[in-house]
Amino acid sequence: MAAPLTRQSRNDSGIHLAVPILKQRFGDRCETGQAIREQHGHTTTWIPTEAPDAVVFAESADDVTAVVDICREHGVPIVPFGVGTSLEGHVNAPLGGVCIDFSRMNRVLHVHDEDLTCTVEPGITRKALNAYLRDRGLFFPIDPGADATIGGMCATRASGTNAVRYGTMRDNVISLEAVMANGEKITTASRAKKSSAGYDITRLLIGSEGTLGIITAVTLKLSGIPEAISAAVCPFPSVEAACQATIATIQSGIPVARIELLDALQMKAVNAHSKLDLAETPTLFLEFHGSAAGVAADSEAVAAIAEDLGGGPFHFSTRAEERTRLWQARHDAYFAAIGLRAGCTVFSTDVCVPISRLAECVEETRADLEVLDLIGPIVGHVGDGNFHVLILMDPEDMAERDRASEFLERLAKRAIDMDGTCTGEHGVGQGKMKYLRRELGGTVDVMRAIKTALDPDGLLNPGKIFQ
Amino acid sequence: MAAPLTRQSRNDSGIHLAVPILKQRFGDRCETGQAIREQHGHTTTWIPTEAPDAVVFAESADDVTAVVDICREHGVPIVPFGVGTSLEGHVNAPLGGVCIDFSRMNRVLHVHDEDLTCTVEPGITRKALNAYLRDRGLFFPIDPGADATIGGMCATRASGTNAVRYGTMRDNVISLEAVMANGEKITTASRAKKSSAGYDITRLLIGSEGTLGIITAVTLKLSGIPEAISAAVCPFPSVEAACQATIATIQSGIPVARIELLDALQMKAVNAHSKLDLAETPTLFLEFHGSAAGVAADSEAVAAIAEDLGGGPFHFSTRAEERTRLWQARHDAYFAAIGLRAGCTVFSTDVCVPISRLAECVEETRADLEVLDLIGPIVGHVGDGNFHVLILMDPEDMAERDRASEFLERLAKRAIDMDGTCTGEHGVGQGKMKYLRRELGGTVDVMRAIKTALDPDGLLNPGKIFQ
Repeated sequence: MAAPLTRQSRNDSGIHLAVPILKQRFGDRCETGQAIREQHGHTTTWIPTEAPDAVVFAESADDVTAVVDICREHGVPIVPFGVGTSLEGHVNAPLGGVCIDFSRMNRVLHVHDEDLTCTVEPGITRKALNAYLRDRGLFFPIDPGADATIGGMCATRASGTNAVRYGTMRDNVISLEAVMANGEKITTASRAKKSSAGYDITRLLIGSEGTLGIITAVTLKLSGIPEAISAAVCPFPSVEAACQATIATIQSGIPVARIELLDALQMKAVNAHSKLDLAETPTLFLEFHGSAAGVAADSEAVAAIAEDLGGGPFHFSTRAEERTRLWQARHDAYFAAIGLRAGCTVFSTDVCVPISRLAECVEETRADLEVLDLIGPIVGHVGDGNFHVLILMDPEDMAERDRASEFLERLAKRAIDMDGTCTGEHGVGQGKMKYLRRELGGTVDVMRAIKTALDPDGLLNPGKIFQ
Repeated sequence: MAAPLTRQSRNDSGIHLAVPILKQRFGDRCETGQAIREQHGHTTTWIPTEAPDAVVFAESADDVTAVVDICREHGVPIVPFGVGTSLEGHVNAPLGGVCIDFSRMNRVLHVHDEDLTCTVEPGITRKALNAYLRDRGLFFPIDPGADATIGGMCATRASGTNAVRYGTMRDNVISLEAVMANGEKITTASRAKKSSAGYDITRLLIGSEGTLGIITAVTLKLSGIPEAISAAVCPFPSVEAACQATIATIQSGIPVARIELLDALQMKAVNAHSKLDLAETPTLFLEFHGSAAGVAADSEAVAAIAEDLGGGPFHFSTRAEERTRLWQARHDAYFAAIGLRAGCTVFSTDVCVPISRLAECVEETRADLEVLDLIGPIVGHVGDGNFHVLILMDPEDMAERDRASEFLERLAKRAIDMDGTCTGEHGVGQGKMKYLRRELGGTVDVMRAIKTALDPDGLLNPGKIFQ
């Protein structure tokens, strides 16, 4: 066993040998043009692009095995790529190597209606999957905002707005097929809904960010499209009141499907962007899934909770058009935020804390943005204690960039010190590596031991998760 | 690094050195009497008892660390023990060694009502925990039948009757504290409801059966005690019809809390045992949790589904006494089954298949019991595709024992061949080791690599999971 590859020990001779072999095997499906390489090392963040040396467009698990075998032979890193919407530099290639692009592995392989499961290739996006499923009355509920691929969502343990009701990727994957660093293709579990048959390798790969194995198929748990959906919106006098309403809702067992907080700055941004006239105070956006009677009862119960906490007026509707209107501010949040500052660069960060600490964490974060003179509207999946800050920066202002770095560090530490996590759903990638030990202590050594055992040469997505 | 311990390489000199050191450290809390040792190597199965050499009654994580350090020093196996209700020989000590008894680590450390979490020591049983939580309006929903410890339920990835609604231990543990084989104590996650911060070491330890680390504290997700509970019972003309009703119920999104099948033989046993006069045909027992209006609506919806499939009459009630009466047959199932054959030895096995294959699997299993001339009533958590066969054997009849072994093998293979698992909730232990590779192929090598990385000397609960 060779020593694992590091930035210092990078040896370009391997890639020079591997690329011609890949070209021979894959022809036009192995690209080395600069534009394509840079596109595949580009992340939607402030982290600089680090391009791979080649991009292979895989069409089957056999293709993936071939890439892994060739790269292992020549000591070349491998970076899996879905659609490039990850937020912490996950697809960067700091040591170069070969990117495997999964966009052509985007088929639905099976749908088992009776079992509420489907098996897909990893390159299908969640919207494409849901379009495919719609006529069957089924859907895949995890919604991270971006139209990410299912494989990428597995790799980062994605979640999003629906997680408060439907859980995260952790809870909605039955089984994975993956090619491991040694080239062996494994299937991590049967299609049974639950199992106690040994270690949970499915959950180990979910959130492993391509560092332990390369996902080549995913069996998902599906949900029935609800009979009725209602949407609601309700302003509150403070973040604290909105969070208390959220806690009371969850404690009451009301099965809210989405419960999103927009802070006052984000509401101001939305009013300006979408020409609305909403109260510029912290506001909850809610959605309920169930029977017609159920969603009406749930909405009424939350309205009463909100009123007790000084919130309101509580507007709600089950009609599709009116629902869209009520949620417009939430749907427009990202572009509205960008509109707060012309020509800015935007990056999104996320933390997650126990819900009892959420108001305190959001308010301290808001105060810190002011201290540091940064513009950062806040949007939260508050039912889970998870929130995002969108930092709007002048890309030319180096002093501001330093303050933003300081902010990110303080935010991560604040969340960790409140018994929370430096990332609720974006993942570690390159951006959050430095916080992992503060959050998890010796558990990082356990992770590292597993990484070394399963990928002794350190070729699978190197430079991620571990510093 | 020494070669891992095996049955062949067992060396008694280590234990002879370790026991006096343990006695010195723990005094009366290190027991070596035969009765206590045998009780700790006894499982509620047909698998013969294999006693440890000593039993240490731990009172703190520091005690556990001390045992691990002493045992590692002397190459002595360690077997964690909750309350001994596991079913596949999990607490047997085939290589001898030291059993750590957790019965004195049974405190509730924290309850965070607003977050719906609590942190407990691993030796608390689920009933003791729920008694503690009741006044706060909270409960921990996982119910495997036996009054198992929370630590043991984590270790075996337990589930049971409520899993169709609330999930399994996989879904209801936020974080674990564990002492690893190297003596380091880790905390696997923060108390945030969700996280993408690196590998899911929490889920890796859940279901690892004490072979990767020894759990010393557990942070659990709690649920609110529902406002209303209704119970229902409904006979069906066939297993097929009962399973179709189950599938239709799940597909409709009705949030049934429990949905249990008793087969005709089990119903016959219950009638005899509890002096009832129920139809001796496959029967579903259901429970609904929610608001008063919600559970009424849910019950009516299932009653309509049942009627469409030839089931009925559908009896249901929300009153506590009447609910108990309706569910009496289910509650009495175990002792009723034993009553079918005087003086028998009983063992319970479990498999789990995709729900679309459940009727076929149950019916083939029933036919196989007849072919093999075995008595085995069937009870299933059918919402999950999971069922149990209780085998009632004459302990003196070696030929019958051979037929039972043959039956178990055929059952596991049948489930695996239907894309299911050899164990839905009992775990692998010693009993299911031989099926793991058939079910999971090369994934077993991944498990083994992790085991070797985290416990290179093979001291943590050896002789389990891996053949």
